[in-house]
Amino acid sequence: MKTIEGGICAVEGVLASGSCENEYGVAVIVCEDSNASAVFTSNKVVAAPVIITKEAIENGKLSAIVANSGNANCFTGEKGMDNGRSMASKVGKKLDFKVNDVAVSSTGVIGRELPMNIINCLIDNALEGLENSPKASTNAAEAIMTTDTFSKEFSVETKLKNGEKVRIGGITKGSGMIAPNMGTMLAFITTDIDATSQELEKALKKAVDATFNMVVVDGDESTNDTVVIMANGRSKANIDENFQEALEYVCSQLTRMLAKDGEGATKFMEVEVNEASTTKDARNAAKAVVSSSLVKTALFGADPNWGRIVAAVGYSGVEMDERIISVSLASNQNNVKIVDQGVVNAFEGTKELEDAENIMKEKDIRIIIDLGLGNSTATAFGCDLSYDYVRINAEYTT
Amino acid sequence: MKTIEGGICAVEGVLASGSCENEYGVAVIVCEDSNASAVFTSNKVVAAPVIITKEAIENGKLSAIVANSGNANCFTGEKGMDNGRSMASKVGKKLDFKVNDVAVSSTGVIGRELPMNIINCLIDNALEGLENSPKASTNAAEAIMTTDTFSKEFSVETKLKNGEKVRIGGITKGSGMIAPNMGTMLAFITTDIDATSQELEKALKKAVDATFNMVVVDGDESTNDTVVIMANGRSKANIDENFQEALEYVCSQLTRMLAKDGEGATKFMEVEVNEASTTKDARNAAKAVVSSSLVKTALFGADPNWGRIVAAVGYSGVEMDERIISVSLASNQNNVKIVDQGVVNAFEGTKELEDAENIMKEKDIRIIIDLGLGNSTATAFGCDLSYDYVRINAEYTT
Repeated sequence: MKTIEGGICAVEGVLASGSCENEYGVAVIVCEDSNASAVFTSNKVVAAPVIITKEAIENGKLSAIVANSGNANCFTGEKGMDNGRSMASKVGKKLDFKVNDVAVSSTGVIGRELPMNIINCLIDNALEGLENSPKASTNAAEAIMTTDTFSKEFSVETKLKNGEKVRIGGITKGSGMIAPNMGTMLAFITTDIDATSQELEKALKKAVDATFNMVVVDGDESTNDTVVIMANGRSKANIDENFQEALEYVCSQLTRMLAKDGEGATKFMEVEVNEASTTKDARNAAKAVVSSSLVKTALFGADPNWGRIVAAVGYSGVEMDERIISVSLASNQNNVKIVDQGVVNAFEGTKELEDAENIMKEKDIRIIIDLGLGNSTATAFGCDLSYDYVRINAEYTT
Repeated sequence: MKTIEGGICAVEGVLASGSCENEYGVAVIVCEDSNASAVFTSNKVVAAPVIITKEAIENGKLSAIVANSGNANCFTGEKGMDNGRSMASKVGKKLDFKVNDVAVSSTGVIGRELPMNIINCLIDNALEGLENSPKASTNAAEAIMTTDTFSKEFSVETKLKNGEKVRIGGITKGSGMIAPNMGTMLAFITTDIDATSQELEKALKKAVDATFNMVVVDGDESTNDTVVIMANGRSKANIDENFQEALEYVCSQLTRMLAKDGEGATKFMEVEVNEASTTKDARNAAKAVVSSSLVKTALFGADPNWGRIVAAVGYSGVEMDERIISVSLASNQNNVKIVDQGVVNAFEGTKELEDAENIMKEKDIRIIIDLGLGNSTATAFGCDLSYDYVRINAEYTT
């Protein structure tokens, strides 16, 4: 597997484009005659575009996605459904797709009607600019940004077990952090694999469970979260384990970007839980630690606070035993065990504490927890809780 | 029912005392020959005093409690168990109780050995000062404070259905907020009701579920949380619904004090959920809203952000329908419906938005959510998320 440039346009036949005006943006992605699948927010309040895209994808087919930023088209009633459908229909008409082959996504403020005059104008511009190029992928990634501070795209080429090559590309924006008033995690993935929508569904769900579902910025789940995969089959190659691995790698790289760009984040953390009794336990423990306000503030304050880490594992509900748990901290250069099978190593005056403090001063920090109970493992992704998180979210006004 | 002074010492026969030195404090509470019950943290990492008190209370009997602040005696292994037992034994010897009739609580930093020379000295001082007076209750309440900014006590006298009078008093400290490194919610309640430990257990569990278990500051659950009730039977009156009501009232007043004194809190919020399908749904919805970082920062920023409130209900997992949900904001003086059966009332230029903004500027705010589905109701208690929360928790160093 190798990283390549091009984002969603790394895949042959994919066209992309983006157009922005003030706080609004529209991205159009074309991946004609694709088999497709998607996963959505489990929030019971769902935005109109989520309902529309669920319907569109029911037959396992998509040819395009139209996504806007600036307004989430959520809590907008029948009018919101009409507006969402009209976005799909406009794109379908122009490109000669059935309205049902066009997915719709929205992100931004909720409870306000979409400004259709602006959105229509941006759709027209985007349709004009469609092309297959790295720049076009970046334009699309930029058009869906809200409070994101950088655009997010990633692409790979991998060899399948039989030697055939396939490509996967993706763009994403503003994660679980929900920014600024109901931001959203949106991710759009393209590939040239030749797979049925059922195969894609299975592969996507598995990848998302290990990646996008493991990123926590503030624990608030949005009304619009959507991940879509479209596979145009141009490689004529069939799905196998190598494809799954590459898909998870693309999703995990996009997930890392989301966590690094969490609202107000000054530091990135990965929490790796090993030796758990079950995968569910490993995931729940990792998510409890990465979500803990006390761990997040300790990260911001560069404090190697093993007590908060162990306590978060304790209340996560997973099987654990404080007498055999071990905790390590790691940066790109260093690694130190601060709790060794229930015994604290990093206390005042020790080299371990000094090392731990130095690691906590870095930007990218890994917390490694060994439960000593089984063979399951999981990683969660997150960031610190800073003054800026409070400022960004307190200053925003409906 | 009437509020009276005296805290835990409002109950005849109760002796209390507190002694402090630097960051350490010890409270002793004597309520001789009481029937007793307690509820504890569900964190799987539990401190030594929690284990000791669980053992002590197994026979439903207590005569005293010794509690220290400054060190949580958690993650301290066998040595921690020995130290906790020696605290109970010292108090028992002096007052002629069995060691098993003395409960032990600790709160403060975790993972460090109790400084027994200081703790023993403070226990001696506290034992010397035991008396039945309002001042003694306050001394005990002060001795268990950690990052609390004020001491917390409350007491009532109530008439039972048969006309007999009973009293209930309580002290508490530093709630679910876990301050500064594993603070703890401790609460000690005394009463002169004549009840069996089984009756007390039932009454306490019901009261705690509706009060202490509904307070959220940062969602991190401590390793030491403990609520103990001791009933010395002096009133010779038996438990009835009026006692239950009074007990819940005392617990809810103590809970409000905890929420108001949340770390860095500048505002207090109560979230009331009505018309839920089940009590469990009502509680889960109320807790989701009161825990939401986005609602908490909106409170800090005085933003009547109904979108974040509705979205939190949406991801709480409870039965809800966005087309019939209503949301109101209230202060002591005012009340405004901002979402009326799925329709937003408070948009730009409306009196509703102006009213809502004025309410959000106050210190005590009630968020009232009507789900329109059933008859169940619940209230959760919390506070805003401020710069100071981040500062307090980021600056603390292990």
